[in-house]
Amino acid sequence: MSFSGVFPYLVSPVDTCGTVLTGVLSDLVEHLVGAGVHGLAPLGSTGEFAYLLREQRYQVVETVLAANRGRVPVVAGVASTTIADAVAQTERLVEMGVHGILAILEAYFPINDEGVEAYFTAIATAAKGRSVVLYTNPQFQRSDLTLPVIERLSKVDNILYIKDASTNTGRLLSIIERTKGRMEVFAASAHIPACVMLIGGVGWMAGPACIVPQQSLALYQAAKAGDWARAMELQRPLWRVNEIFAKYSIAACIKAALDLQGFKVGDPLPPQRPLNEAARAEVADVLKSVGAL
Amino acid sequence: MSFSGVFPYLVSPVDTCGTVLTGVLSDLVEHLVGAGVHGLAPLGSTGEFAYLLREQRYQVVETVLAANRGRVPVVAGVASTTIADAVAQTERLVEMGVHGILAILEAYFPINDEGVEAYFTAIATAAKGRSVVLYTNPQFQRSDLTLPVIERLSKVDNILYIKDASTNTGRLLSIIERTKGRMEVFAASAHIPACVMLIGGVGWMAGPACIVPQQSLALYQAAKAGDWARAMELQRPLWRVNEIFAKYSIAACIKAALDLQGFKVGDPLPPQRPLNEAARAEVADVLKSVGAL
Amino acid sequence: MSFSGVFPYLVSPVDTCGTVLTGVLSDLVEHLVGAGVHGLAPLGSTGEFAYLLREQRYQVVETVLAANRGRVPVVAGVASTTIADAVAQTERLVEMGVHGILAILEAYFPINDEGVEAYFTAIATAAKGRSVVLYTNPQFQRSDLTLPVIERLSKVDNILYIKDASTNTGRLLSIIERTKGRMEVFAASAHIPACVMLIGGVGWMAGPACIVPQQSLALYQAAKAGDWARAMELQRPLWRVNEIFAKYSIAACIKAALDLQGFKVGDPLPPQRPLNEAARAEVADVLKSVGAL
Amino acid sequence: MSFSGVFPYLVSPVDTCGTVLTGVLSDLVEHLVGAGVHGLAPLGSTGEFAYLLREQRYQVVETVLAANRGRVPVVAGVASTTIADAVAQTERLVEMGVHGILAILEAYFPINDEGVEAYFTAIATAAKGRSVVLYTNPQFQRSDLTLPVIERLSKVDNILYIKDASTNTGRLLSIIERTKGRMEVFAASAHIPACVMLIGGVGWMAGPACIVPQQSLALYQAAKAGDWARAMELQRPLWRVNEIFAKYSIAACIKAALDLQGFKVGDPLPPQRPLNEAARAEVADVLKSVGAL
Repeated sequence: MSFSGVFPYLVSPVDTCGTVLTGVLSDLVEHLVGAGVHGLAPLGSTGEFAYLLREQRYQVVETVLAANRGRVPVVAGVASTTIADAVAQTERLVEMGVHGILAILEAYFPINDEGVEAYFTAIATAAKGRSVVLYTNPQFQRSDLTLPVIERLSKVDNILYIKDASTNTGRLLSIIERTKGRMEVFAASAHIPACVMLIGGVGWMAGPACIVPQQSLALYQAAKAGDWARAMELQRPLWRVNEIFAKYSIAACIKAALDLQGFKVGDPLPPQRPLNEAARAEVADVLKSVGAL
Repeated sequence: MSFSGVFPYLVSPVDTCGTVLTGVLSDLVEHLVGAGVHGLAPLGSTGEFAYLLREQRYQVVETVLAANRGRVPVVAGVASTTIADAVAQTERLVEMGVHGILAILEAYFPINDEGVEAYFTAIATAAKGRSVVLYTNPQFQRSDLTLPVIERLSKVDNILYIKDASTNTGRLLSIIERTKGRMEVFAASAHIPACVMLIGGVGWMAGPACIVPQQSLALYQAAKAGDWARAMELQRPLWRVNEIFAKYSIAACIKAALDLQGFKVGDPLPPQRPLNEAARAEVADVLKSVGAL
Repeated sequence: MSFSGVFPYLVSPVDTCGTVLTGVLSDLVEHLVGAGVHGLAPLGSTGEFAYLLREQRYQVVETVLAANRGRVPVVAGVASTTIADAVAQTERLVEMGVHGILAILEAYFPINDEGVEAYFTAIATAAKGRSVVLYTNPQFQRSDLTLPVIERLSKVDNILYIKDASTNTGRLLSIIERTKGRMEVFAASAHIPACVMLIGGVGWMAGPACIVPQQSLALYQAAKAGDWARAMELQRPLWRVNEIFAKYSIAACIKAALDLQGFKVGDPLPPQRPLNEAARAEVADVLKSVGAL
Repeated sequence: MSFSGVFPYLVSPVDTCGTVLTGVLSDLVEHLVGAGVHGLAPLGSTGEFAYLLREQRYQVVETVLAANRGRVPVVAGVASTTIADAVAQTERLVEMGVHGILAILEAYFPINDEGVEAYFTAIATAAKGRSVVLYTNPQFQRSDLTLPVIERLSKVDNILYIKDASTNTGRLLSIIERTKGRMEVFAASAHIPACVMLIGGVGWMAGPACIVPQQSLALYQAAKAGDWARAMELQRPLWRVNEIFAKYSIAACIKAALDLQGFKVGDPLPPQRPLNEAARAEVADVLKSVGAL
């Protein structure tokens, strides 16, 4: 199964007792698939994977799969510090029926390139033919994927995509040139989607798409059609959404935005804090400015 | 129960199937308690807490408690990204019978001071009167404890100690001066123990004490007696052990050292790598130079 | 005078006695202006401003002005830690007849926003109507220009341009949106020129243009004409030149490249080192691959 | 000439026209030498070397030498990005009659170990037998001295001292152990002087000694005598002075403190800012608490 287009990173709504709020999550999935998104990505950074217990993670994915009813591909996050645990998570998600794995390496001590390769290769094997999307995020992860490691991993059969959350767009072009024909690139919210499409990217996996799905799809279609003037016309106002995500903690920000839009997804897991009133008002203003509230 | 002296950070021996090697861990506890250490600290950085599943963590602590047979205080690590999980871990460890909690905050997104305080205060409450040791490690943790937060937390009834793994010894003196009468300071392997004792520290919680317990105790006793000339005579050669820990990944290094001393504790959990032969030989040389091999 | 297009950052050829090699510098200027570049930028990072005495700096600019004979605008660098010295440098360069000032803030201790604003505003005043280009480079400078400071500075009459050497292309779009109608953006070698043109940039000031002027101009013209497919066709191979600049020390790299092309510009000033043979061969390969050797 | 003891880093009083205020600088020298300091160190970080033109630097040193009248050793700073300029500065200072050189490497692009060694070795040669003190400050300098480079430089005949301004006291013990018999260690204000003396340091070169000379000397004498209980009794209150230096920009802080003590040394050079009123009051409180106001 081939992935491209707009994949919103889903939030993980969890109440103060730790219960996954399956109702609102199902509603959000229905809303996004109805809007025409090309895929769904639970358990990314926006999905607070780092804050969820294993069972909470699985319940989020189960809920998404059930609500989706096979309409679009679901690419779910696997994140661990150990190979053993990452493999166990991958096997469980594959059993559930996900279409792809978003592979994330957590680290405490630094890991050398050999270890990084072993980690991602083990996930690819455990994915039993499902596509794997490498996730690299120098902001929040302790170990980064270097270009030589990415190049080597692109030769693994089912490692077909990379999603880079650095702010360095030039790095994406370096990856594209080095892995041509073997790996496709998705943008994250730290990059300008129009630019990533121009240099050969195939779409974006990003939190903002959760709250501005229609606007994201219009931008994707203009870029896909090569209508760059139109793409930039749509891109300019939309960039404000990415700016506000970079300014505030991403999970707090998107949960506040969804709440404003009527999806009662609750707060980020403590000790994370919800946005204060001023920040919430700022998010509301941005949403209004792009017609999303 | 009051803590002071030399508390070795214990390794967590786990085989390639994920089974905790309780035999060798019990032997190590017996060896260290027999050598006269003042306490035991499972599930610190050296104990690879960040690489263990919840059940593996609990099994390590149970093994240590059983082997210790109440002879010295056991201060076990609690580490999480969420308050809910940290509280659950604390309650479980208290039920098992630990004497104190080493409280560690993991983070993915940045946490503000209010959140940091809420996290440690919640652990202190859950510890039901057991002493809490704050753990601060700017090298591997994403969120650091600032001096104002430490000062406020020192006013919580059972937060009585702090273990600082920065390399900044001056910061320890700042903490000591600000929390006098409410909080005591333990050094970590990043500080010179003799210096920390000189400025008013009460001991050290550190990985190296696992492999040089006698030498550590001799140093502690000289410092405690105010015999600083003798303390420095013991400290100089011992510092090489701390240096080599800083040079190599700490868990790989101490597991290699214990293996050389006859404790078959295995390798760090993959994708961490064991030391290569050259590094292992360097560790052996250092151990020999201080009479620990 | 309005600036746009391709402005090569010039190297500063200095022999081992500290003498500026005016002959080869004049030849390089003749070559670049002949190739059709839109302007010249001496004393940028590539021009090793940080390694030159005041008199060496002035001699470089005098040589460039003389060789240029008024054909294209010359935008020369001013860099200092103090306002007094920056103003003196600016006055001297204006007297010499430069068309614009590239304003660089050096710092030892951190400077607050108020101080940063005062520094650039003082340069603008001293420039007596000449255009000022703000230079921001988080990689090598200790103090960065924040978005609010850039927005305020864009309201100064003759601060009309900014050249951003971060790798963060999204930051450029944020600057463009905030300063519309008051400030134009030039890319640096850390950004993909085609992307910066797409989002509304007016050109680039960069070291690589020194060694691939024709190729840079072709790319600029395609982008300017809105022929984005053609622009990307030219951009892909050219990106290898930017990659190699990021890999090696920029001054050593461009001096080696010019030497390979027959401009005997010598080595970077010691204790900087020239490229070793392997790196030099790699640079030669890249030049050949884009038809520049 | 052998150096040990307390060497205050002198401020560089410069008025708004750039004139060195030789009167107040001479008064300060007289005051400090009268108080019994063991040496004087103009043109360190505290002396704002990074903000002074070459002629201002030389005038500061000339003033200090004249006011000192040969009573204590004067160790003056040399700082540059190039070997040629550092050598020229060194030769000029040696001609003036300084007793030692404090050698500082400024950098813009990263410099490799070979370049770092070449830089300091060239200064040592130019110093013609005067002692050289290596200065390493990871906080404000771009290139750090690694342990292997320090070890190699300690074998140069007249490189006899190192002053380390990291906060990492353990690094000092590593240096001491590696260079025994060839190099002595001075503390900076980032270290606890009593600790550095305990591990074998020979004194400290630091800004705070400018404003608390008597207190610094009393501490030095207690430590030198091996009376560690007394040393710590003096050290505890004094540490507040170091804390406040770390909190505020060091030059602004010490100039404010000297102004409060009656030395009209003016403000740090713009765009640096003087302390605001609240910070000034905080400095006054600290001075009072140690009997220095």
